[in-house]
Amino acid sequence: MIFKKNTKAKIAIDVMGGDNDPEACIDGINRMLKLFPAVECLLYGDERKIKEVLQKYPKISNKVKIFHTESKISSREKPSIALRNSKNTSMRMAIEAVKHGEADAVVSSGNTGALMAVSRVVLRTLPNINRPAIVAMVPTIKGTPVALVDAGANAECNEQTLFDFAVMGDAFAKIVFNLEKPRIALLNIGIEEVKGTEFIKNAMLKLKEAGGLLNLHGYVEGDGIVDGSVDVVVTDGFTGNVALKTIEGTAKLCEHYFKMSFSKSIFSKLGYLLARSSLKSTFKKIDYKSYNGAMFVGLNGVVVKSHGSADGKAFFYALNTAIDLVESKINDKITEELNSFEQIAKREIKPTE
Amino acid sequence: MIFKKNTKAKIAIDVMGGDNDPEACIDGINRMLKLFPAVECLLYGDERKIKEVLQKYPKISNKVKIFHTESKISSREKPSIALRNSKNTSMRMAIEAVKHGEADAVVSSGNTGALMAVSRVVLRTLPNINRPAIVAMVPTIKGTPVALVDAGANAECNEQTLFDFAVMGDAFAKIVFNLEKPRIALLNIGIEEVKGTEFIKNAMLKLKEAGGLLNLHGYVEGDGIVDGSVDVVVTDGFTGNVALKTIEGTAKLCEHYFKMSFSKSIFSKLGYLLARSSLKSTFKKIDYKSYNGAMFVGLNGVVVKSHGSADGKAFFYALNTAIDLVESKINDKITEELNSFEQIAKREIKPTE
Repeated sequence: MIFKKNTKAKIAIDVMGGDNDPEACIDGINRMLKLFPAVECLLYGDERKIKEVLQKYPKISNKVKIFHTESKISSREKPSIALRNSKNTSMRMAIEAVKHGEADAVVSSGNTGALMAVSRVVLRTLPNINRPAIVAMVPTIKGTPVALVDAGANAECNEQTLFDFAVMGDAFAKIVFNLEKPRIALLNIGIEEVKGTEFIKNAMLKLKEAGGLLNLHGYVEGDGIVDGSVDVVVTDGFTGNVALKTIEGTAKLCEHYFKMSFSKSIFSKLGYLLARSSLKSTFKKIDYKSYNGAMFVGLNGVVVKSHGSADGKAFFYALNTAIDLVESKINDKITEELNSFEQIAKREIKPTE
Repeated sequence: MIFKKNTKAKIAIDVMGGDNDPEACIDGINRMLKLFPAVECLLYGDERKIKEVLQKYPKISNKVKIFHTESKISSREKPSIALRNSKNTSMRMAIEAVKHGEADAVVSSGNTGALMAVSRVVLRTLPNINRPAIVAMVPTIKGTPVALVDAGANAECNEQTLFDFAVMGDAFAKIVFNLEKPRIALLNIGIEEVKGTEFIKNAMLKLKEAGGLLNLHGYVEGDGIVDGSVDVVVTDGFTGNVALKTIEGTAKLCEHYFKMSFSKSIFSKLGYLLARSSLKSTFKKIDYKSYNGAMFVGLNGVVVKSHGSADGKAFFYALNTAIDLVESKINDKITEELNSFEQIAKREIKPTE
């Protein structure tokens, strides 16, 4: 994907969603505007607080539009209740900006379940999609990224939901990773056919019915997410969220161990100084913040979820993801993919009818 | 835990279980016997193949006893079918050695489901335990290990099963980690009370009913497994297995990135040379092989499952785990713990009766 200095995307931002907001959001916007000075930012949140933080960033104060609201959705709120009480919250107002064409994408570090519930009601799903999913991009050992679907939107799924995730993941990987035939796998606790729950085995049977429409790799285990053997890993939102957070936690653990090992002796400290520049790029590679910004696929609009605990740097990456997805016209292309999938499916079924 | 040079443990070994067996097993035994020369090894498998490999290890040939069988359980076999056809297989014979008191523990790199099914039938479960579980030990950022229960024995669980896992994990951590009040957490997709499936919420209610008997921390997300905030993470076997393999895969990914970064320039290569010794100990720390050997808890006997893909070094660690568990009389102590738990529970309930 290509970043363009003159990109004109309009991003609606819920600046009251995350643990460190509005500070993190505004710091992230500041970083982003240095790269993309033509991007328009619509900020939804408490005007007084926003202006207070903006004092630290005088250069961007006149580049953002503030839409005042004091109400926000708490991270502790149940999605159904959050949805019911969402009127005039910063999150809902930001999503509505996309619906009304005032913004091309929305970014929030808020309550994931609520963001999904409100987005679904306000933006509606794409044709033929019943339940939207979260796609998280994760680095692999081969250097290529992998798309994990669903990374946490649907804690409970059925076979059809997993099938839809596979189709959306396929479309996403074709567009975002620029692949002709993304390799699709189902996450399981073994790669042999007999392994796993009945639910997983039935989902695999359903995927196999799609025949040549999907480049089905089979099952992968947890380590298969990051080993580069596949491009899309399909799973339910509970397992996907656990896997994603486990990857982040383990990467932090490894980084910590490595940093410790450089402080052990005068030799290792010297070694660090010599290898510093390449090590820094490695620390960056495994820093989960660089992968912040998961897309909600299956909605009539680009919705990017940033980590609840995102800091400015992480929020910057989430904004980048949103701009990237807007630039690549992701939803038009997913719809196109889904349509052609439907048409091919109909053609393929015809002879046996 | 203390390793003793003169430990007299007798270990029954299924030498036909793993992908690299019998080579990996025998290489692992060779490494182990250098540390524990008094350990007795009972080898179950194809005598001809074993003797062929043993030619490379002349020093240990007279230290192992071979029990010949040509039949083995395939890693592709469904547990129920494997159990039915398990008679005279290397795995079953090794487990039976524990049942008959000929060995103190059994180690196998074979089919996890089959190892659990056969162990359950041959050894039976401990009193009050319905479904045994796999406990995997994982390193954390604070340097202390964490016990993940269940790491893959029971793909489908109910609230009571998770409760039993918590009690067994509690006992395991008290004994193996030497903790008075291990901090117990339930794996979830959020730490707030409203997060997760109905199943997880009900399991949490059940755990809360145990009152002060468990030092209940609440929920952790995937990154909470390795952040050192808790000592025991309870989850179903599907999620636990995915999390464990994801940790392994991510650690490999990070190791790979770091190794790459040292080969980037002459400076980073020099840096590596200087920091080599402390880096090596870090690579070892994050090498999943050092954590090979997961215990099956809840059985009348010590059963250690080694990775299917274990090499000699990894199998060596699995053997160490088995010796360690035998030395610490793990099962006597778990039974004691479970009994006192039962008794305290009865006492606690009495006043309200």
